[in-house]
Amino acid sequence: MSNLKKTISDALHTRFGEKFAVPDGIDGLTTLNTMASHRTYRRYSDQPVDEELRRLIFGCALSAPSKSDLQQADIIEVCDPVLRDSIADLLPSMPWVGAAPVFVVVCGSGARIRQISARHDIEFGNDHLDAFFNSAVDAALVLSHLMVAAEAVGLGTCPISVIRDYAQTVSNLLELPDHVFPVAGLCIGWPAEQRRISARIPTALTIQRDTYNDTDWQSHVDTYDARRGRLDGWDPNDAHFRGWSLQKAMMYERPQRVEFGAFVRKRGYCLD
Amino acid sequence: MSNLKKTISDALHTRFGEKFAVPDGIDGLTTLNTMASHRTYRRYSDQPVDEELRRLIFGCALSAPSKSDLQQADIIEVCDPVLRDSIADLLPSMPWVGAAPVFVVVCGSGARIRQISARHDIEFGNDHLDAFFNSAVDAALVLSHLMVAAEAVGLGTCPISVIRDYAQTVSNLLELPDHVFPVAGLCIGWPAEQRRISARIPTALTIQRDTYNDTDWQSHVDTYDARRGRLDGWDPNDAHFRGWSLQKAMMYERPQRVEFGAFVRKRGYCLD
Repeated sequence: MSNLKKTISDALHTRFGEKFAVPDGIDGLTTLNTMASHRTYRRYSDQPVDEELRRLIFGCALSAPSKSDLQQADIIEVCDPVLRDSIADLLPSMPWVGAAPVFVVVCGSGARIRQISARHDIEFGNDHLDAFFNSAVDAALVLSHLMVAAEAVGLGTCPISVIRDYAQTVSNLLELPDHVFPVAGLCIGWPAEQRRISARIPTALTIQRDTYNDTDWQSHVDTYDARRGRLDGWDPNDAHFRGWSLQKAMMYERPQRVEFGAFVRKRGYCLD
Repeated sequence: MSNLKKTISDALHTRFGEKFAVPDGIDGLTTLNTMASHRTYRRYSDQPVDEELRRLIFGCALSAPSKSDLQQADIIEVCDPVLRDSIADLLPSMPWVGAAPVFVVVCGSGARIRQISARHDIEFGNDHLDAFFNSAVDAALVLSHLMVAAEAVGLGTCPISVIRDYAQTVSNLLELPDHVFPVAGLCIGWPAEQRRISARIPTALTIQRDTYNDTDWQSHVDTYDARRGRLDGWDPNDAHFRGWSLQKAMMYERPQRVEFGAFVRKRGYCLD
């Protein structure tokens, strides 16, 4: 087995705790490895990310598919240090937002389809949840492509979806017009730390066939909690051990971003 | 310049009508090329996509980042021919839905966080738009990764977001539980046609710096309409020519998926 095939199957084994075979003779192993070995990086070296390279990965990101070819995503690069500090100050627990060599905000935009409809004097007949949904999905596709493009060239990234806790403030700072909304920030830079692969729940739950069946979800989540705990250096039988499922249940007990719906409506979207 | 560097900059030039430089000495050119050269394929050869390879690209897709590590996306592979035909019959104008060697539905899922909260007897305090939004974005990240993984190994893909026109019917067919909803289908197979790169609006609109500025949107859209028309073999001065902006305005005059909000609420989501 080639080194790259082994790296990919090892990465997926760490990720899912399951075997993944890499067939002989397939193309694209480098790309598959970029995805399979994905890690989040929050510390970056001082080495800048040259403008040419930034533009290249932005272009690859914006080559992502787009729902009905409406192209409802924008990348806003925050270059001005005062502006960057204003955003970073909102998130004091995430110093990498201020420190990363590059910080962008990926936005969903339903503004353009409304602009061109008005220009052609044609009524825009789709003021409902799906229109908002489409622009959010388009932005996520671009965000996802941007992360893969950045990681492919050796950069590290850290998505900052928590900027939506301050969606209105961030929108004011970036002077976003109506129907344009932040989906997530993204820190980008040359990694200056070692990071591990984040373990994922068993594919028995996430890869389904034909009809949805999560009858055994409890045992799969138990298996995952224990496996993940061991990867993090815990003895899952330790009385102080809190597995993924308990951590996440506790995290989402407290209401978060309850204002997001009101914000989106205020930006001009109807969510009926 | 290496062949791959030229292929990437040529692809991005076709895509945006602008120059993109590929710096010397960077890694990941193969991956950047997969993204820059992205095309949608709707016709596939009879060659099957082996199960091992399908599982490999699904694993790479599910290695995508996930909001707060909640892992709110599932891939449902439609293998049963009767089930596939039932979905294909909904979309007679898209015969590739029935004919593609592989067809999957990528779903957003807010079910798991609710299951684990209930199991730990902890109240889930986040029944609002952002919770729905997060699962939709997670699903889009997985969809995006799945397309890149498939294209990296030489497969072609075609996303089918229009299955949301039949969100309730598709959910019934796939027996989706509450809080699990289809985001898009995806056809996958070995390409059996030539396809062109789809042109995109100028990056003056989609790559912004610091503060949002689309003052000149009309002239950029005009430039794009004409450039795209010429790529499609039109004379933009031809009286019968309809540019992208006019086509899209006309397409979205007619209401589409007006029931999607009611469907999502019926699946158990509060969108306040």
